[in-house]
Amino acid sequence: MNALGRHILAEFYGCNANILNDVEKVETVMVNAALEAGAEVREVAFHKFSPQGVSGVVVISESHLAIHTWPELRYAAIDVFTCGDRVNPWDACHYLVESLQATEVDSTEVQRGKLKELNAQKVS
Amino acid sequence: MNALGRHILAEFYGCNANILNDVEKVETVMVNAALEAGAEVREVAFHKFSPQGVSGVVVISESHLAIHTWPELRYAAIDVFTCGDRVNPWDACHYLVESLQATEVDSTEVQRGKLKELNAQKVS
Repeated sequence: MNALGRHILAEFYGCNANILNDVEKVETVMVNAALEAGAEVREVAFHKFSPQGVSGVVVISESHLAIHTWPELRYAAIDVFTCGDRVNPWDACHYLVESLQATEVDSTEVQRGKLKELNAQKVS
Repeated sequence: MNALGRHILAEFYGCNANILNDVEKVETVMVNAALEAGAEVREVAFHKFSPQGVSGVVVISESHLAIHTWPELRYAAIDVFTCGDRVNPWDACHYLVESLQATEVDSTEVQRGKLKELNAQKVS
């Protein structure tokens, strides 16, 4: 790895609106996605909005997963950020696509904490 | 706005290592950053790692802020994701640069939930 972490930013379209509006289901799916990737869950924080929508985060030993849902648009913004080479963020992402029943996904992987940059910043 | 949200991904270098390793200070700084941007704090989840490092997330009505710190590298990975046009994620980001005493920052703003894409996905 050339970086401390891998961060997937994913736009999920055409999801199941009922799931996206159910805070308990969304929390279960997000925690399971973390476990699916082999991550260790540390903290969980979810919130249900009125009249609709859910936001939540799973803090893992390897960084975090986050979700924000717009059930009325059948859209969810997903982040899967993992550090180290023991877990693969794409395992969590693929699990989420299936669980939220997304019909289309637009995703990008970004490197976080590039080693080259970190070495350049080192104070001698 | 052409999108539901604005997401800043920022690499903070040369930060104050003592702050980065103090979970209470990091939490305070992150909550204050959210407030600085005019956001409404909903949930907070922070975790201190052994031997060092802090991970944490502030869920706000307008999405979330996240941080992962490597005190030994004086590095922090920061995310500030806000929805709507009432809050400006850069206000939170600038506050964090000052509070964590970063000497160099590499940041990018990404649009989340682009309206063009969402309209194209609409089922008639």
